[in-house]
Amino acid sequence: MLPQLQAYVSQFVTLSELEWAAITPLFQPVRVAKDEFLVRHGEVCRQLYFGSRGLLRHYYLHEGRDTTRYFAPENQFATALSSFLTGQPSIEQVQALEETALLRIGYDQWQHLMRTVPAWRELPGRLLEAAYVADTRRLESFICQTGQQRYEALLRHQANLVQRVPQYHLATYLGLQPETLSRIRRKVTPGPAADAS
Amino acid sequence: MLPQLQAYVSQFVTLSELEWAAITPLFQPVRVAKDEFLVRHGEVCRQLYFGSRGLLRHYYLHEGRDTTRYFAPENQFATALSSFLTGQPSIEQVQALEETALLRIGYDQWQHLMRTVPAWRELPGRLLEAAYVADTRRLESFICQTGQQRYEALLRHQANLVQRVPQYHLATYLGLQPETLSRIRRKVTPGPAADAS
Repeated sequence: MLPQLQAYVSQFVTLSELEWAAITPLFQPVRVAKDEFLVRHGEVCRQLYFGSRGLLRHYYLHEGRDTTRYFAPENQFATALSSFLTGQPSIEQVQALEETALLRIGYDQWQHLMRTVPAWRELPGRLLEAAYVADTRRLESFICQTGQQRYEALLRHQANLVQRVPQYHLATYLGLQPETLSRIRRKVTPGPAADAS
Repeated sequence: MLPQLQAYVSQFVTLSELEWAAITPLFQPVRVAKDEFLVRHGEVCRQLYFGSRGLLRHYYLHEGRDTTRYFAPENQFATALSSFLTGQPSIEQVQALEETALLRIGYDQWQHLMRTVPAWRELPGRLLEAAYVADTRRLESFICQTGQQRYEALLRHQANLVQRVPQYHLATYLGLQPETLSRIRRKVTPGPAADAS
């Protein structure tokens, strides 16, 4: 698990072996079963996770309507980020879609790293850049694309999600009725990219 | 203009007078007339702005439909952020709603500050935190609130926008038809908060 974390973080910031020796004991391995919750609506989320295996779903449940915000597969950080940053109760819920293995760090330990490991201070900016750009692209896809175009983009960029996620969750992620998604899937046959040679 | 920038940035990071002396020459004052564009759809945005006076609107125009993403009044940074971060063409447009005075810094100068002023490296993370939390609250307001609740929240938190922004732009910001917003405004009379004493 730790080598995956190190490989991921090293894409963004450069840390010495000595710094890693201070960092890694602050991450605790945890396992969550399929369907188990990491964060429920109304709870303050004071933990940040790095997924080494499995799949999480971030979603809203409001007046019986379930809306998927995003899926967090292995090899990325995951948390109810607004709650983690602000200390306010979370609106979104985070639940495991598969048996999931994670590394967990608490808010206070994260702040300790920010104070004691100067290079770590650059990491939140780099991670938030990626999160902001991903959120913006998603917003823009709802404004500028049809449901079929959103599904095709998902197939191009995250084909493995389409295999791993139940169709009713994919539908709420794409903002479609399940029967509309079924119709689109029958029409769009996944296959090699047109420019493959 | 520079004192406003310094007061704003100092909320997030602490910089010495010597550091400020290196930073401030990289910001150039610019003025844009009402209705002038800072960023158009399809352009790569390589400039970041700090508004000292006036008001910008960030919006999408897709197949004739205008959707306001947000308003950027004075005393904050503004840019087509995804384009600035990724170097990709911008989907959103940025236009002045009022005569606006700004400080402008280019992408290369911003990166120069990141390399040469260590404390500056913490600033993107802090700004992106705020942007991420604001975007998440807005998304959640569309999922969990009625149009009237969104309007009432805007009155509570950004009452001055309600005065400054034409009603048709407010409507696209709140995701409402103009006539629905008119009906809500007639119903909701702005006044002192209920708990004011």
